[in-house]
Amino acid sequence: MKTFLDCFPCIMEQALKTARLATQDEAKIKEILDRTGEMFRNMSMLLPPPQLSVKMYQTVSEITGNIDPYKSLKLAHIEEANKLFESLKILIQDSKEPLLTAIRLSIAGNVIDLGVKTDFSLEEDIQKILKQDFAIFDYEDFKNDILKARRILYLGDNSGETVFDKLLIETIDKPITYAVRETPIINDATLKEARLSGLHEVANLISSGCPAPGTILDLCNEEFLDLYNDADLIISKGQGNFEGLSDENRNIYFLLKAKCKVIASHLNVSLGDIVLKSNKKRG
Amino acid sequence: MKTFLDCFPCIMEQALKTARLATQDEAKIKEILDRTGEMFRNMSMLLPPPQLSVKMYQTVSEITGNIDPYKSLKLAHIEEANKLFESLKILIQDSKEPLLTAIRLSIAGNVIDLGVKTDFSLEEDIQKILKQDFAIFDYEDFKNDILKARRILYLGDNSGETVFDKLLIETIDKPITYAVRETPIINDATLKEARLSGLHEVANLISSGCPAPGTILDLCNEEFLDLYNDADLIISKGQGNFEGLSDENRNIYFLLKAKCKVIASHLNVSLGDIVLKSNKKRG
Repeated sequence: MKTFLDCFPCIMEQALKTARLATQDEAKIKEILDRTGEMFRNMSMLLPPPQLSVKMYQTVSEITGNIDPYKSLKLAHIEEANKLFESLKILIQDSKEPLLTAIRLSIAGNVIDLGVKTDFSLEEDIQKILKQDFAIFDYEDFKNDILKARRILYLGDNSGETVFDKLLIETIDKPITYAVRETPIINDATLKEARLSGLHEVANLISSGCPAPGTILDLCNEEFLDLYNDADLIISKGQGNFEGLSDENRNIYFLLKAKCKVIASHLNVSLGDIVLKSNKKRG
Repeated sequence: MKTFLDCFPCIMEQALKTARLATQDEAKIKEILDRTGEMFRNMSMLLPPPQLSVKMYQTVSEITGNIDPYKSLKLAHIEEANKLFESLKILIQDSKEPLLTAIRLSIAGNVIDLGVKTDFSLEEDIQKILKQDFAIFDYEDFKNDILKARRILYLGDNSGETVFDKLLIETIDKPITYAVRETPIINDATLKEARLSGLHEVANLISSGCPAPGTILDLCNEEFLDLYNDADLIISKGQGNFEGLSDENRNIYFLLKAKCKVIASHLNVSLGDIVLKSNKKRG
């Protein structure tokens, strides 16, 4: 997915939010906003939005010396999600359709997205998403593909959401490789946050090599690309991974909540809609 | 009021919105965003926000050749408000406290602010604001000052809101000078929109000389400044005028709805609150 003009004000907003987490020095924050503003001219609209935000995040680290401004928020969200883990596990086990309930919960976990907005209510959103209709619902395909799949690659997204991914992975109950970002970017999970979420207990953890808040194949490492090319089913969580892979012709299932109008419009759904979308060529 | 860091993403958002109204040429819109981003470094944080947005709006005109992108929206909002005029006039006349009802309605008209957001529901907002508690309510002072006042200056804000101002001016029923912007900026009223709202029937219309979406004294003309300095009561509508005049030591009453968090925080009220605030020195 290419970048839309609406992404530019959003990148400024993210720059301000990230800068404020990284420092309290107003002059440094102003310098980050100035530099971000100056980047727009040289940003290619043909690249996916997550790729454009990398340079902005690097600027924050460079100016403030803080390479992980979301560190404490990430830990807090993992802790919050971990506290819900056992009760949600029971909810899945007791449900009529455990796989679907686990999918819903893993999408509910996707509200912990600090790239878009910082205020969400996890428990409220869980209750809402457990009942919400899907705007795109390729569930039958997904269920069939999961049954047959032998090499499943799962693309993680936000820290905290990772705990919900663990529930889905346990429910699928097959060997799964779980890929995370190479370096801290927004509140996205790296290997550290994946381990804190207990994902090493249920999956083979790897770094995609990607420093962007999404899966941009051009920026991924060889180990990841081999697994990506070899996988017979890919589960892609969240907007950032969708933005990077929406034009790929692979057996990918996108699980996300449409939290920005650009994504919603690209998916032809409404803001706030939940999606389980196969990108297999239909025919 | 000085500019806050939060104003920068908002200026980018305004640039995009205004550019899209002015042209459908994506390359021109991108150029407007690029130039706006490049302006931040040289924008002084000591100036009030409306002053900073002037250059951005000039860039839109320069690149698109459209000097009044909000033209048709302004006319539509005046028309919408004009249709409500007679019924609101009766509402004021029939109310227990006509002056207060007229003040509430003039604040309700302040929702027609396209600098902050483009979606509002005028009739719904009117009903809400007729019942809403004021977060700051210097009404007794206002009422007393209005009784004594001989030289009242009324600072207009948005087109459409102008029609609601006409209702308040009729209710006050004293000679009033109504000042508007010099040139088109966002949906702010100029002399043209003030006349279309019938304000020439109830007030002496003048241009403040200000090209900014607010009252920035440094940018105002002499005629306005003479009236401003001579007035014994100034009614200031909306955020833009407040941003320009909040630090002035004059007998100004600010009537507004706090529609952005920077203004809300500066006034120590919540987002969405309505305000009738005197800036007289208390003691």
